[in-house]
Amino acid sequence: MRDTTASLGLYGLGVMGSALALNILERGFPLHVANRTASKVPGFLQEAGPLGSRAIGHESLAAMAAAMPAPRAIILMVDAGPAVDQAIDALLPHLRPGDTVVDCGNADFHDTRRRAAEIEARGLNYLGVGVSGGEEGARHGPAIMAGGRIEAWEHLAPVFEAIAAKYEGQPCAALMGPDGAGHFVKTVHNGIEYADMQLIAEVYGLMRYGMGQAPAGIGEVFARWDQGRLKSYLVEITAAVLRAVDPATGGPVVDVIEDRAGQKGTGRWTVVEALALGQSASTIEAAVGARGWSAEKETRAAGEAILGSPRGPVQVSEGDLEGALLAGRIIAYAQGFRILLAASENYVWGLDQARVAETWRAGCIIRSALLGDIAAAFRGEMPMGQLVLAPAFAADLRASLPALRRVVAAAALGGHPVPALSAALAFADTFAQGRGTTDLIQGQRDYFGRHGFVRLDTGAVHQHGPWAG
Amino acid sequence: MRDTTASLGLYGLGVMGSALALNILERGFPLHVANRTASKVPGFLQEAGPLGSRAIGHESLAAMAAAMPAPRAIILMVDAGPAVDQAIDALLPHLRPGDTVVDCGNADFHDTRRRAAEIEARGLNYLGVGVSGGEEGARHGPAIMAGGRIEAWEHLAPVFEAIAAKYEGQPCAALMGPDGAGHFVKTVHNGIEYADMQLIAEVYGLMRYGMGQAPAGIGEVFARWDQGRLKSYLVEITAAVLRAVDPATGGPVVDVIEDRAGQKGTGRWTVVEALALGQSASTIEAAVGARGWSAEKETRAAGEAILGSPRGPVQVSEGDLEGALLAGRIIAYAQGFRILLAASENYVWGLDQARVAETWRAGCIIRSALLGDIAAAFRGEMPMGQLVLAPAFAADLRASLPALRRVVAAAALGGHPVPALSAALAFADTFAQGRGTTDLIQGQRDYFGRHGFVRLDTGAVHQHGPWAG
Repeated sequence: MRDTTASLGLYGLGVMGSALALNILERGFPLHVANRTASKVPGFLQEAGPLGSRAIGHESLAAMAAAMPAPRAIILMVDAGPAVDQAIDALLPHLRPGDTVVDCGNADFHDTRRRAAEIEARGLNYLGVGVSGGEEGARHGPAIMAGGRIEAWEHLAPVFEAIAAKYEGQPCAALMGPDGAGHFVKTVHNGIEYADMQLIAEVYGLMRYGMGQAPAGIGEVFARWDQGRLKSYLVEITAAVLRAVDPATGGPVVDVIEDRAGQKGTGRWTVVEALALGQSASTIEAAVGARGWSAEKETRAAGEAILGSPRGPVQVSEGDLEGALLAGRIIAYAQGFRILLAASENYVWGLDQARVAETWRAGCIIRSALLGDIAAAFRGEMPMGQLVLAPAFAADLRASLPALRRVVAAAALGGHPVPALSAALAFADTFAQGRGTTDLIQGQRDYFGRHGFVRLDTGAVHQHGPWAG
Repeated sequence: MRDTTASLGLYGLGVMGSALALNILERGFPLHVANRTASKVPGFLQEAGPLGSRAIGHESLAAMAAAMPAPRAIILMVDAGPAVDQAIDALLPHLRPGDTVVDCGNADFHDTRRRAAEIEARGLNYLGVGVSGGEEGARHGPAIMAGGRIEAWEHLAPVFEAIAAKYEGQPCAALMGPDGAGHFVKTVHNGIEYADMQLIAEVYGLMRYGMGQAPAGIGEVFARWDQGRLKSYLVEITAAVLRAVDPATGGPVVDVIEDRAGQKGTGRWTVVEALALGQSASTIEAAVGARGWSAEKETRAAGEAILGSPRGPVQVSEGDLEGALLAGRIIAYAQGFRILLAASENYVWGLDQARVAETWRAGCIIRSALLGDIAAAFRGEMPMGQLVLAPAFAADLRASLPALRRVVAAAALGGHPVPALSAALAFADTFAQGRGTTDLIQGQRDYFGRHGFVRLDTGAVHQHGPWAG
């Protein structure tokens, strides 16, 4: 058994909690476990097999805390929201200075900031930890994004680094910053995941309904792309999903799947936080919106009957589709990192964006070949702190934006909705023009509301322009 | 002098408050006035000229309330936020059952809901009233969107109907629903205003930088469009702004205006509320985002140097630009009304969407010829409650969407950012396709996260698809 500086406990043996517990046990750490429904604990210990011998089951969270030797570190793996506050309330009477509460759920970072302040004020430690990679990741190696005080992190770093995914031997686990920094990085991770999935679905739609290709063939194309610059988990599983055959029909599985996408809120949180920080995560917003609209299937069917399906043939090359997806993905990442920068400045987190990119290189859903380049870009020359202006990515965009233009134009003419691809293009074109068109908007605002405008030539502020002329 | 069922007071003699006070006085109502800086009151009375004889100035809000005969109605015209709460706190000791507090500022409707609940619990009345039309509107006839109890509204309706803008003799003033309904309708009004201004700016950009036209000539085109389906205040003032000449340079005024647009938050609120209600106001989000990006002028200049300006020539007809703007505007309105419907259901407001459209027909910034048709559409057949599916607007879209496609495609190829136009097109194309592409997204989510999917053929829910195959 490994030594730790704290006794370890885990509360919440659902799908993710059980997987994380088994991962911890497998890495050699003894672990106390408990669950709201206590009867689940013996079952877990039995299923754990030989690993279960290192685990100590308890009747309740309070009993577990009371039984653990100090200093204690207690991982909560319960539903985000009130369940976390309830668990903390149950724990507090049993904790002593030096103990650490670790929330490994998908918390809203605002909640994490509040909880960290409350718990640290009692002389205890608090870590808000984003864990990405689903059940499989939790069991065999997730990406781990922590927020909290450095002393608390160092206490538990050996555990997190042991259970995390490894990229070329380096653990994908890091302290991102204080309080809510870890959960915020996880939220933005999920936002980028939304955008990337939507970009992929738009390219799929063009190939399927604009170019008449079958899912299996499209899957082959994605599999090829997974050997190049687009190499990533999401492109890899897209190939697998599109090639999968339904045993009942003998046809592609995607053809029997209802096109109503669910969402859990982190994508939406990213967009709302971006807006609150004066940013716009337009590719992520497009993805969140598309999922929302997908749920209105009856309205879409009525719309097709009334407006007539606009879907027509599309002629674009496979190379253009690959380039468009690459450009879109770079811009989705760039928008995500812009939000991280704005949040880091606003909350004084001191986020190391290169470290964020490195942490995402393995274990998480958006792991991709690009992330190594992104980390390198953040360590090198980065004009205006913008990823799209870093030399390597500016070169990528100069090469791939023409393809994105052709794909967006063909989709527009062919009647195929591409909200994320077109949002990405609008972002790129906006940031490549020193002189935009908001002079007119400022003119309108001053005309009807006396909002004033700044003169380009003198810098003087006009409170009301010469509109009578 | 006119009779009212309550004595009227107005607190806050800033630009908007003074204009509204003069409007009320001019319509024949006696009015008590006060201001935080009391020294401003005599100046206001003097500037009011003969109208000032109907006004009674007071030293403070409390003094005004104490001096007014019951029942009192006190209009607050102060900055949204804490200033409203402070004014209410100062008023409360002086108010008696039957008195009414009226917030005519740009309040966040969440605040209005809270204040209405607190004040109504004391047996007093509260009205949260959105006033649109800027200083000019406040002085000579704004659009008025009220929220509160019907008894409180009926008390003051004669005043609001007298001071409001008139559309074919009908006052543009209405009770929208309880508590925050009026301020929410005003927020969505502003969101639509953002989208419409951005759509106009994008069309301007194409004509200016893609087709090489001079501002004055573009102004002539907008002036022509203002005679047709696009007839509206914003198109009218666009023509005026573009034709205005700068005395200092002798050139177009827009050419000396810095292209950094400001924003006050209501556009952002609309997008955030849309997301909270499971909606996506993508055209409004595009407008909010474009204003945010416009503020980053130095980054845009650096981007132009590094990425190279993508701006090239664009060939589209004037008719296509007009059609694209019409389609974009219809969709921006449609997205706004979708949010109103969702909010009305969520907060149980019973909003009458036709009445909302009618209230916007005069006095406010988004007044346009379309609004009469929108009101008629909401009173007629409205499949799925969607404006874009109402017969008249479906016909409009069938006629104008081909133009929007050609404009978005030309802009994409020509390197001109059109975030709002392309968001509008993506919305229209999404809602014209019963079968979308989120089957793939559901497949991905089930593949990596066991989120499950619904089978189209049997309706069965799969918890994990046959991905091994």
